[in-house]
Amino acid sequence: MAFLTSNSYGKERVRLTKISRSEGRHEVHEYSVEIVLRGSFEEVYTKGNNTPCIPTDTMKNTVYVVASRTEFSSPEGFAHALSQQFIDRFPQIERAEISISMERWRRIVVDGKPHPHAFVKEHGRRTARIVHGRSSGNGGYPQLEGGIAGMELFKSSGSGFTGFYRDEYTTLPETGERILATTVDSRWRYAASAADAPEEGFDGAWSKVEEITTRVFATHESPSLQATLFAMGSEVVERIPIIESISFSMPNQHHILFDLDRFGIENQNRIFYGTDAPFGVINGTVSRNPAPAADPPIGDDARGSASRGVR
Amino acid sequence: MAFLTSNSYGKERVRLTKISRSEGRHEVHEYSVEIVLRGSFEEVYTKGNNTPCIPTDTMKNTVYVVASRTEFSSPEGFAHALSQQFIDRFPQIERAEISISMERWRRIVVDGKPHPHAFVKEHGRRTARIVHGRSSGNGGYPQLEGGIAGMELFKSSGSGFTGFYRDEYTTLPETGERILATTVDSRWRYAASAADAPEEGFDGAWSKVEEITTRVFATHESPSLQATLFAMGSEVVERIPIIESISFSMPNQHHILFDLDRFGIENQNRIFYGTDAPFGVINGTVSRNPAPAADPPIGDDARGSASRGVR
Amino acid sequence: MAFLTSNSYGKERVRLTKISRSEGRHEVHEYSVEIVLRGSFEEVYTKGNNTPCIPTDTMKNTVYVVASRTEFSSPEGFAHALSQQFIDRFPQIERAEISISMERWRRIVVDGKPHPHAFVKEHGRRTARIVHGRSSGNGGYPQLEGGIAGMELFKSSGSGFTGFYRDEYTTLPETGERILATTVDSRWRYAASAADAPEEGFDGAWSKVEEITTRVFATHESPSLQATLFAMGSEVVERIPIIESISFSMPNQHHILFDLDRFGIENQNRIFYGTDAPFGVINGTVSRNPAPAADPPIGDDARGSASRGVR
Amino acid sequence: MAFLTSNSYGKERVRLTKISRSEGRHEVHEYSVEIVLRGSFEEVYTKGNNTPCIPTDTMKNTVYVVASRTEFSSPEGFAHALSQQFIDRFPQIERAEISISMERWRRIVVDGKPHPHAFVKEHGRRTARIVHGRSSGNGGYPQLEGGIAGMELFKSSGSGFTGFYRDEYTTLPETGERILATTVDSRWRYAASAADAPEEGFDGAWSKVEEITTRVFATHESPSLQATLFAMGSEVVERIPIIESISFSMPNQHHILFDLDRFGIENQNRIFYGTDAPFGVINGTVSRNPAPAADPPIGDDARGSASRGVR
Repeated sequence: MAFLTSNSYGKERVRLTKISRSEGRHEVHEYSVEIVLRGSFEEVYTKGNNTPCIPTDTMKNTVYVVASRTEFSSPEGFAHALSQQFIDRFPQIERAEISISMERWRRIVVDGKPHPHAFVKEHGRRTARIVHGRSSGNGGYPQLEGGIAGMELFKSSGSGFTGFYRDEYTTLPETGERILATTVDSRWRYAASAADAPEEGFDGAWSKVEEITTRVFATHESPSLQATLFAMGSEVVERIPIIESISFSMPNQHHILFDLDRFGIENQNRIFYGTDAPFGVINGTVSRNPAPAADPPIGDDARGSASRGVR
Repeated sequence: MAFLTSNSYGKERVRLTKISRSEGRHEVHEYSVEIVLRGSFEEVYTKGNNTPCIPTDTMKNTVYVVASRTEFSSPEGFAHALSQQFIDRFPQIERAEISISMERWRRIVVDGKPHPHAFVKEHGRRTARIVHGRSSGNGGYPQLEGGIAGMELFKSSGSGFTGFYRDEYTTLPETGERILATTVDSRWRYAASAADAPEEGFDGAWSKVEEITTRVFATHESPSLQATLFAMGSEVVERIPIIESISFSMPNQHHILFDLDRFGIENQNRIFYGTDAPFGVINGTVSRNPAPAADPPIGDDARGSASRGVR
Repeated sequence: MAFLTSNSYGKERVRLTKISRSEGRHEVHEYSVEIVLRGSFEEVYTKGNNTPCIPTDTMKNTVYVVASRTEFSSPEGFAHALSQQFIDRFPQIERAEISISMERWRRIVVDGKPHPHAFVKEHGRRTARIVHGRSSGNGGYPQLEGGIAGMELFKSSGSGFTGFYRDEYTTLPETGERILATTVDSRWRYAASAADAPEEGFDGAWSKVEEITTRVFATHESPSLQATLFAMGSEVVERIPIIESISFSMPNQHHILFDLDRFGIENQNRIFYGTDAPFGVINGTVSRNPAPAADPPIGDDARGSASRGVR
Repeated sequence: MAFLTSNSYGKERVRLTKISRSEGRHEVHEYSVEIVLRGSFEEVYTKGNNTPCIPTDTMKNTVYVVASRTEFSSPEGFAHALSQQFIDRFPQIERAEISISMERWRRIVVDGKPHPHAFVKEHGRRTARIVHGRSSGNGGYPQLEGGIAGMELFKSSGSGFTGFYRDEYTTLPETGERILATTVDSRWRYAASAADAPEEGFDGAWSKVEEITTRVFATHESPSLQATLFAMGSEVVERIPIIESISFSMPNQHHILFDLDRFGIENQNRIFYGTDAPFGVINGTVSRNPAPAADPPIGDDARGSASRGVR
């Protein structure tokens, strides 16, 4: 005997570009959208009965229809409008998960002024995600998240790593001064009520998280990437009321002193080589409230489908 | 206030190549290893106290030491040896997760004979994963998984998609004959006792899953990729006793008939173009036993860190 | 003043899948096609005069039309048919360059027999390229090339590197026994008359080059990757009459002994780690005839647009 | 018989990070360096004679030694110092080609002030390249280039494509208003004397090319990407005296109106989908002086090893 004990399906990399052309000034929303549906689809798998099966092509069409019919100014807002459409329209769906990766387009500056319709890409991406159940928990509200993906940071001072656990296979020297380099992937959970709040709040949250993340990275005297993660997350949940928790996944992108001694040259902590592999990775979730008995809301690896979805 | 509600850390892309040189015939094991540890690490984050912190560099060294001291013939066997080492050696660890991606090296054939020490890469990767708790569930056994990653399949007949749900945004035509193309990512859970069984069983399981997956793909008259997934999974759990469940994530890599009518040419179902985006993705877990009350064992998205770890 | 001193344009990643359905047995041709045109296009750039400009969208359509109207069995054959179409149809073109990357689909074996219409991907790609001038050199024949891209090879014995040049910054130890690992990118130039020869010759050439490349890699006692390259290339031009020259680009994918001495363990030449960066790269062209006075025909870096085109 | 008609070898992805720590303010130079050498290396290939062979490992060491011993402030300056070292030190070298890809680190702003040692990555990369012959042309000067790689641009108005050549396979509609999106890869050739000029000139050139490229992209009423390329290039060579010529390779990253008519919705030029494949690509070189009789200096495909080297 064989049982289908779990299933889901959907569409990935639905690439949407929406231009808003108000008042001679264009706004660009460039999203890569991922949709995953769960519901009464067992017989599609087990009996070859396609009756309940919503084609993934229909999901794609729905993205463009909702984009054209909805006013939105944030990926969070669009994710919510889209998940609502799926839940409202298709009775066989129990849960819709929408993950969005947004390219960041910055206006080109011409003669000191931001151009009305020309843009250069900005480093890093903005993400949003919603888990929208037909009668989902959290007081009936869908779970809405924002995020930062792929923001690379580097500091050449203010980071050390000492006093760690040693065993017979530990060869890492302690250092009070090292290069700290990472790529921030973070996802934060909004308070339940935020899904119905004005969208400007999401833009504001993103900017504040970005500001806190980069500033804490720069100024925190770091005893470990773990401690820097907690410092970032603490300030986020303490200062941004609509964020309940934030998860980070941050690789430790090692830069190693090149051995110049063998050539009679003193390195003076100036010449390094970067490595891609192996790399450390640090995960953590920081919340305004203690953890509930159950699993943490997001999970501590922030490199989820929202990160992957940005392909 | 801020609380650390979840945390983990580790090392990724530890690249190990082990050559076994018995009897003039070399065996190659080329692994990319990912380690994630959970345990009493809160103060590393919250207080900058590195006392319990095992450097990720030590984790890396441990991979090579265990590889040199252990006889193993499968990624499953090595994963188990490695997780056991972490649990035994470090009291602060509650759970070690090891994910391995293995390159597949096939002997070059010279004059009709497999060469003793020269290899050409084979398509697709083999994966293994273990979740090893200090006193973990499953009767105290660690949870051990095998997997296939990145195996691309294509068929030009024997696949249709009809009778699906339609709404006003459905434009997909029904078809009784289409190209079916996918990339198999699968992970299977071994029975609890398998972790202590001879390693040959893992090699045998891998070969059988590969044989079933490709044969069912070829011969199943497919009404949907979902149904093909279930057919594959059912045969796996029915015919391989040490496998308790198997999860698949399979993209639907669309090939679309190119419109030649406008040039006065009849396509005759011969000329297609492939697309990368968007793509459908089908997930499902098939088990020998009905699902327990709790979450499914693996989760239905088989593209986990074992897939990612293969970088 | 400003002058347009060089120009070209075209279309990349035109993805073509052609199914030939003769006699219940399907053949699959899956190509990624790149087209670059040169000709009388200066005014498109300098005056905004689009009159001579062939839209790249038309180039794309042409790929599918030629694929539907032409019988071909090799990427070389299709490249030639396509370049001929461009030269014949558009008087403003002086030169058409077509680069093709072909996926290798191998029949799935079911019950010991190759399946008529189901395939699993094979490692490595086959490439073809043509440079077709309106009155091009080489006796008026277009220059036609075949190629192998992305074929990864590994040997655990039979390779050393000694007696090399040393200066004060040389720290590499000599070794009589090392791992040799590379990824073969090669391109070969066919004799001028080959473009009009039966297509089977191209398939035969590909198989012979693959056989020679892998066998020489396996059996050549390698004093350097350079010498192995020359041994491969020499046998190719000596044994395959329709090939006039062959270029290789082969990275030296270093595998480094892991230092286990510090843990009191003898490595015994068994435990290595692979690195991605930096890597050596060895280029060379081997020809049946001495080099002409002018530049070599292909150039010695075989990782050209044919390699890139395979995206 | 077989002849080695061309050869070269070198090292890629030598990753260098140099920190300059003057006056409490750190400067970061993060380069990926590629070295290709040509010279008297034939016997390495043809006779297995390694006597003249400079190990690529030595090339790597040389990068770090030169970085530590040389004051430089630009990738152009470092490329020149490095190629000079190779030419001076190794008599068997006839030509050294150095390609550098530089990550762009922007200071994190804290409390309105740029931080002295913390950085966030900036979009796009800066490149440099030198071809340094022992007695090379160009009046004995090495050929030095600068470049921009991977700078993505997008405009939602001010671009059309009309009046182009039509044949029976042309289906592209004319449009007076389309999205224009591209990724700029450009390389420029400095005047012969620039190699000995102060390095500030290179930084200034880069900033001016970036300003011209983005401004012309934004403001040029584009009849084609070709014409925009020429407008960019013309202004570069007319306004930056040390630049003799500039080459661009720019993909046309198509954004296609999504068909909403079938759902009774008017698109109003707002809802698009982006595609990765196929894509157009436009190449061109713009020079201050008419082309010499020989081939253009750089070639018109600006996506060379400097672009690739940034891996």
